[in-house]
Amino acid sequence: MRIGVLTGGGDCPGLNPVIRAIVRKAYNDKHEVIGFKNGWKGIIEGDTVPLDLNAVSGILPKGGTILGTSRTNPYKKDKGVENVKESFKKFKLDALVAIGGEDTLGVANKLVKEGLNVVGVPKTIDNDLNATDYTFGFDTAVNIAMECIDRLHTTAESHHRIMVAEVMGRHAGWIATHAGIAGGADVVLIPEIPIDLDKTCEILKKRHQRGRTFSIVVVAEGARLKESDVTKDQSLDEFGHVKLGGIGDYLGKEIEKRTGFETRVSVLGHIQRGGSPTAFDRVLGTRFGIKAVELVENKQFGQMVSLAGTKIIGVPLERGVEKLKTVDMELYDIAKEFFG
Amino acid sequence: MRIGVLTGGGDCPGLNPVIRAIVRKAYNDKHEVIGFKNGWKGIIEGDTVPLDLNAVSGILPKGGTILGTSRTNPYKKDKGVENVKESFKKFKLDALVAIGGEDTLGVANKLVKEGLNVVGVPKTIDNDLNATDYTFGFDTAVNIAMECIDRLHTTAESHHRIMVAEVMGRHAGWIATHAGIAGGADVVLIPEIPIDLDKTCEILKKRHQRGRTFSIVVVAEGARLKESDVTKDQSLDEFGHVKLGGIGDYLGKEIEKRTGFETRVSVLGHIQRGGSPTAFDRVLGTRFGIKAVELVENKQFGQMVSLAGTKIIGVPLERGVEKLKTVDMELYDIAKEFFG
Amino acid sequence: MRIGVLTGGGDCPGLNPVIRAIVRKAYNDKHEVIGFKNGWKGIIEGDTVPLDLNAVSGILPKGGTILGTSRTNPYKKDKGVENVKESFKKFKLDALVAIGGEDTLGVANKLVKEGLNVVGVPKTIDNDLNATDYTFGFDTAVNIAMECIDRLHTTAESHHRIMVAEVMGRHAGWIATHAGIAGGADVVLIPEIPIDLDKTCEILKKRHQRGRTFSIVVVAEGARLKESDVTKDQSLDEFGHVKLGGIGDYLGKEIEKRTGFETRVSVLGHIQRGGSPTAFDRVLGTRFGIKAVELVENKQFGQMVSLAGTKIIGVPLERGVEKLKTVDMELYDIAKEFFG
Amino acid sequence: MRIGVLTGGGDCPGLNPVIRAIVRKAYNDKHEVIGFKNGWKGIIEGDTVPLDLNAVSGILPKGGTILGTSRTNPYKKDKGVENVKESFKKFKLDALVAIGGEDTLGVANKLVKEGLNVVGVPKTIDNDLNATDYTFGFDTAVNIAMECIDRLHTTAESHHRIMVAEVMGRHAGWIATHAGIAGGADVVLIPEIPIDLDKTCEILKKRHQRGRTFSIVVVAEGARLKESDVTKDQSLDEFGHVKLGGIGDYLGKEIEKRTGFETRVSVLGHIQRGGSPTAFDRVLGTRFGIKAVELVENKQFGQMVSLAGTKIIGVPLERGVEKLKTVDMELYDIAKEFFG
Repeated sequence: MRIGVLTGGGDCPGLNPVIRAIVRKAYNDKHEVIGFKNGWKGIIEGDTVPLDLNAVSGILPKGGTILGTSRTNPYKKDKGVENVKESFKKFKLDALVAIGGEDTLGVANKLVKEGLNVVGVPKTIDNDLNATDYTFGFDTAVNIAMECIDRLHTTAESHHRIMVAEVMGRHAGWIATHAGIAGGADVVLIPEIPIDLDKTCEILKKRHQRGRTFSIVVVAEGARLKESDVTKDQSLDEFGHVKLGGIGDYLGKEIEKRTGFETRVSVLGHIQRGGSPTAFDRVLGTRFGIKAVELVENKQFGQMVSLAGTKIIGVPLERGVEKLKTVDMELYDIAKEFFG
Repeated sequence: MRIGVLTGGGDCPGLNPVIRAIVRKAYNDKHEVIGFKNGWKGIIEGDTVPLDLNAVSGILPKGGTILGTSRTNPYKKDKGVENVKESFKKFKLDALVAIGGEDTLGVANKLVKEGLNVVGVPKTIDNDLNATDYTFGFDTAVNIAMECIDRLHTTAESHHRIMVAEVMGRHAGWIATHAGIAGGADVVLIPEIPIDLDKTCEILKKRHQRGRTFSIVVVAEGARLKESDVTKDQSLDEFGHVKLGGIGDYLGKEIEKRTGFETRVSVLGHIQRGGSPTAFDRVLGTRFGIKAVELVENKQFGQMVSLAGTKIIGVPLERGVEKLKTVDMELYDIAKEFFG
Repeated sequence: MRIGVLTGGGDCPGLNPVIRAIVRKAYNDKHEVIGFKNGWKGIIEGDTVPLDLNAVSGILPKGGTILGTSRTNPYKKDKGVENVKESFKKFKLDALVAIGGEDTLGVANKLVKEGLNVVGVPKTIDNDLNATDYTFGFDTAVNIAMECIDRLHTTAESHHRIMVAEVMGRHAGWIATHAGIAGGADVVLIPEIPIDLDKTCEILKKRHQRGRTFSIVVVAEGARLKESDVTKDQSLDEFGHVKLGGIGDYLGKEIEKRTGFETRVSVLGHIQRGGSPTAFDRVLGTRFGIKAVELVENKQFGQMVSLAGTKIIGVPLERGVEKLKTVDMELYDIAKEFFG
Repeated sequence: MRIGVLTGGGDCPGLNPVIRAIVRKAYNDKHEVIGFKNGWKGIIEGDTVPLDLNAVSGILPKGGTILGTSRTNPYKKDKGVENVKESFKKFKLDALVAIGGEDTLGVANKLVKEGLNVVGVPKTIDNDLNATDYTFGFDTAVNIAMECIDRLHTTAESHHRIMVAEVMGRHAGWIATHAGIAGGADVVLIPEIPIDLDKTCEILKKRHQRGRTFSIVVVAEGARLKESDVTKDQSLDEFGHVKLGGIGDYLGKEIEKRTGFETRVSVLGHIQRGGSPTAFDRVLGTRFGIKAVELVENKQFGQMVSLAGTKIIGVPLERGVEKLKTVDMELYDIAKEFFG
């Protein structure tokens, strides 16, 4: 068989292990693999790269994706879908493995309905993709965020400061919750629950009253204010999120003003999505890649790979894209046990 | 309530997060916590340490256990069980949380049958404890082993060598399998499957034939030889394991002799169990600690905490100690896809 | 002898190794050590902490300072100097070791002239303190910045982006230059040389012309614009630095606008000063601490410890504070060899 | 000009930064670079690899050497020197940059005397090469060793054990001394000073008497026993070093026997020489590479690059190979302040 592979959307530690595993499994089972560059853009434009064992040698520990990525959507491009279909023919593809998030898999799902042989590999650093326990990249991001929070701890303690750490998580607070628990945060704020500034400051004041002279607040970039806290001078976007400088900077100012404690802000940003994947993400990415080829071999098109407990299974792409997976409130309750 | 806590057996990254979570949850719910030093030894001898919020401040990122540990078994000590019972009375314990592996939990299980209120928290760096998907410490060990294997890669490649990395895993090859997949090992050898030296060397020779000038072999310390490979000059212990210098050193010599490729050995040893826990282990340890207090609060004595998929549940101690959890062969098959 | 110790100014990985070494050397030589909390504030207010071997046990790998720190200056506080003198008497100090940067050592130097027995230990994460080859904290900061730049590399490459990394360095570009060389930056911008936006964009365009689809720009927080590049809409502070959002954000916008390449910004901020010190900083801090006690024992007051080649020596405090140590242009030329 | 490059001897983190810098500097100054594979072997056999910007793209953070290495010595091979000379002609070399340790530079020095245009770049992970303050690779090795010692600390403390860490250092104890100071070792044993077992055990016993229940002993692999401690059952090599299992294992057994404290041994081995170089080593390697090309451009053949304080200079190859650089006893005295 001839199998095409592409990676779409934001990059993520673990993409290269997926690609390597697909190529290796295909080599073992005598298939051929063609890489398309920069997501759907590559298959639309017929921009390919050969993927044999040499091409994937040494990429396992590397972050990012050797295929490159883009946010191109064939359904939003003139003749986009047509071009994809043509590439399927031109490159004699028996199947395509689309590795990506909600957008990429949404496209994959539609293409399956148009008759193309596509399987999906879910990717979201925010861990908010449905129908899989975890995706690769998330564990690496959580570990990076945790290490940063560990570092902020020592400086917060030395200067008797509050440190606000803004972490990734546009629509779901998985990274904030995990990194908050792992980093020993005194408050964790997530998109799922509007921020109550009064309560937040109350928690921090109580903590200082019992003798602690420093605190760590972890906030997801997508966390938004409680309606009653929004004042005229805040610039909000369409989702109610603080614009300009972001929620971290806003929180830092408000907390300092309301509590009187010196407060500093650290926006972790892009460093969370780079670098060598953790063991968890390398193993998960590898298992996903192998399973994706098995789905192709079994002609289970329209499915995506998924982690269910300790097993890798196939589930309908539909289920992956039908809704966002928000934070399990039982887990958030664990974080809350350590508030203050 | 008054809750006692002890940590027994080999130390593990993640023990301190468990202790901290128990103390915090107890503080929130108005219980008192008493720490017993050095496992069962401390409760036998009445050797305690107070566990309040100050005692656990800052221990989350620390490896090891602030309580100390030992391998003392009250059932193997004169008046051991009697002394434990007396300590229960003397310290007015409503319950005891025993954190430890097969031995520690085995003792806990027996004590429950003698009428003591004990719950368990499973601990095994080797991940071979039954009735839980994972235990804390394992993810840290796998990441350390993987980083070491990454390092061995660059030196193997520069010198065109075979590097044998001996990792932990006395009875089960979980660390070898995970670290082998994550580190890109060309052969992974585990206690579950006797080593076939001919086949191993065959794989390595084939790999070199297709142009690779270096290889990485990962072997669990508990891996043993196929019966027909055992010769007179090998010193084996009662389980059929190579003694003196261990399986890693033995393999290194045999591979060099049989393949003619320069081979070096690295025995990772104790560094795998030390150091700051990963985010996965800190979160899991924290969740285990919280759940242990909930088991106590619900009087679910005779249970241990357990990870099942993404949930933390209680399961009978009996199930945890009834058998060893060996490597899932589906997972080992993933490692095998990359052999050679 | 009775020796006082304090840490002033911004915190830095390596302060705890200095404190530990002072306490250990004092213990070996039968002196007594008193710690003053939070820099000059502690000696003004008589706020002390006992410093014996137990107090410093386990602090070697910890970032920050167990003594706490502040920016209090006795010369800017009513009766500040008087209070310091009183504390010298009250606590029967034979000498004081002041660990800090330009401000702290400036105060120390003045106090010596007023007759107090003070020696200094230089501390500046920016490495801009005169009369010593390096200070502790700098190597750790450079390594953290480098690791972040490594991470930005993989995401820049996957997305074909320019990444701007803003690192510490208010008045000198040591961190930017070292981290830029170590991280493989394509442009490094430092406070010593006003930024030439045209030239910067020219370099990046040329690089893309020779086939590279991503670039890394490292900029020190204190880098400022060339006068002719300053337009009305920029908010500059008294030193000519871009305010609001900082130079990194400004550069990101300008580069994207002028080159047309997608550009993202990462402001590394506080994480650079936290966390466990590197071996270099632990060894240097330890040597500094030992030498500080030797300066006291030899009554070489008015001196500070200093690294000169591979040796630790004493130099007059005066020399340390007389001027800022800016980047060696021979070193910056090394960075420039890799521009574009 | 046409410049040849080779890397000889044991591999080291920092070799790739040297190679990259040579290629970049040559590109900037319009020279051509030819890589010889596997040290002197490659130039003897005419085995080359082209070295342009693409060949060195992305190698800065990689350990090892992309050129490969070997221990081949042209003076110990039939027609070796003759072949080297022929390659000089065949490949029209204007100069050769030999990157390596005592052996490699010794050969380089002899070849210069035979009229070949060779300059050297010193490499020794043990830091025992003369006429340079430091070489690259050493800082990385020290940091890896320190991290391992940090990890051994937590397990030693939990189990109340003595941990012996055997680190690299065949003839000089630089790694042991630096990693020992940085890791907080309670005893550091180096090749420069024969081990006094009685004194060592005395120190450990005293430490336990003052309440410490664990200790860390760091020993260089090349440390040897005091003559009076050598008994019949020890197998020594020609240098008086313990054979079979090494000095670490021997020490562990003796210390446990003599002190009665449970003792474990960790032989760090090959992981110390692998992995991504630290910032210090990347910067030093880069500066060395640039300087090597400058030596060639200035026709300063017979020189090697060297770190002197904060400057990179050229020194005669002769000086580099004339003697071993052993540990500065002033530095070892720092380690001794913390004994016990």
